[in-house]
Amino acid sequence: MSTIQKGHLLWYIPDGYIPEISQGELLSHESICVLNTYQEDAELKITIYFEDREPIEEMNYLVPGKRTKHIRTSALEKNGQVIPVGVPYAIEVESSIPVIVQYSRLDSTQSELALMSTMGHPVNS
Amino acid sequence: MSTIQKGHLLWYIPDGYIPEISQGELLSHESICVLNTYQEDAELKITIYFEDREPIEEMNYLVPGKRTKHIRTSALEKNGQVIPVGVPYAIEVESSIPVIVQYSRLDSTQSELALMSTMGHPVNS
Amino acid sequence: MSTIQKGHLLWYIPDGYIPEISQGELLSHESICVLNTYQEDAELKITIYFEDREPIEEMNYLVPGKRTKHIRTSALEKNGQVIPVGVPYAIEVESSIPVIVQYSRLDSTQSELALMSTMGHPVNS
Amino acid sequence: MSTIQKGHLLWYIPDGYIPEISQGELLSHESICVLNTYQEDAELKITIYFEDREPIEEMNYLVPGKRTKHIRTSALEKNGQVIPVGVPYAIEVESSIPVIVQYSRLDSTQSELALMSTMGHPVNS
Repeated sequence: MSTIQKGHLLWYIPDGYIPEISQGELLSHESICVLNTYQEDAELKITIYFEDREPIEEMNYLVPGKRTKHIRTSALEKNGQVIPVGVPYAIEVESSIPVIVQYSRLDSTQSELALMSTMGHPVNS
Repeated sequence: MSTIQKGHLLWYIPDGYIPEISQGELLSHESICVLNTYQEDAELKITIYFEDREPIEEMNYLVPGKRTKHIRTSALEKNGQVIPVGVPYAIEVESSIPVIVQYSRLDSTQSELALMSTMGHPVNS
Repeated sequence: MSTIQKGHLLWYIPDGYIPEISQGELLSHESICVLNTYQEDAELKITIYFEDREPIEEMNYLVPGKRTKHIRTSALEKNGQVIPVGVPYAIEVESSIPVIVQYSRLDSTQSELALMSTMGHPVNS
Repeated sequence: MSTIQKGHLLWYIPDGYIPEISQGELLSHESICVLNTYQEDAELKITIYFEDREPIEEMNYLVPGKRTKHIRTSALEKNGQVIPVGVPYAIEVESSIPVIVQYSRLDSTQSELALMSTMGHPVNS
């Protein structure tokens, strides 16, 4: 199956949100889960869109060949800019080679945890 | 990548439901999360389908260029009509330019919250 | 947009499961949420696959034109056969006209509820 | 509809994670839910990708004709290797005939359960 394109170069996740509060032993967080099935590294450029301000463009992240990275959105940073907590936003993931992208959120705002997950929306190229 | 279509003009979410009850500090709610990656505004027409009555057609909503909006379904209104709580319904989102649509629900009917999320189902045009 | 096909004739949901236990005010249940955007009725044939026995084939259900139905899987029945609780199964939804299918589960086995949801997997025809 | 391809030969799930802790009566677990609508058996090869080590390649699993299997990831094994708990990973499912793949996780790390689910990401072949 070596000639099949495994994934896409561009993915979108409209519902991003970092909860402000955690309770219990698990921290509220989101992850952008990226799988790179190729031998080469995947160079990601992650752009964050907001409701009422300009985007933060092209935060960089590297996913090595034959590896997955479950990227905490709170760890993304560019020129001192980070994604603010408690603010609705959306995510664009552009990759140098095809990858597969899933988004998951764990919310422990109230004392027991909640989970949600969805595949990103791929754009054909 | 400027010539690639980023998103779709028509999206569906069959499982809409606004919970009647909230407990704790978080209000039960749903959001239609829309991302517009273009410079132009996206003009949305949102139609609501029910199990046993005629649809509410073409509620309007604007998503500005390079912005996301996480639209609370309880805030949608047309000629005094709103989506009733505690009633199963379905959502159609038609947009003037391609957008990406995700649906999420937070339910705090019982005292700890639950989350669910899924991409909308896009129709190719 | 009247000539665009809005949905698909065949959908799959591999993870079906009716929880055996409910606690609190909400009953554990699953729903197959179907949206029919056309004027004509959609005649559904729902087939249930199991891990270790023959399928239950072609349970019938009607979704009227311009309506949605959020079908409780526990309400499906054919010749006295129903889907057993506490057993892993999978769902096939075949429709006479294109529809959109989403699957959701509410689990209140332990005293606070949990939710999950995903679009069905459509087959192109 | 006998000539339509029902499913895909290759599926991806980037967000795999076996929770370390369970509380209450339900065990934390994940399932890869596979539906085989054909008469022939589907021979699966499941490859697991990690963040910082080489993949575990091609664990075998059989899904008989006209059956579904909800595969516990903790039950997968190859030459004594199993998927470690508490470690982020990603899943590739390759099948000898077309199947449909959904992924679900039940987390009871804190005392009430949480659920998440998504269809796998199919690759066209």
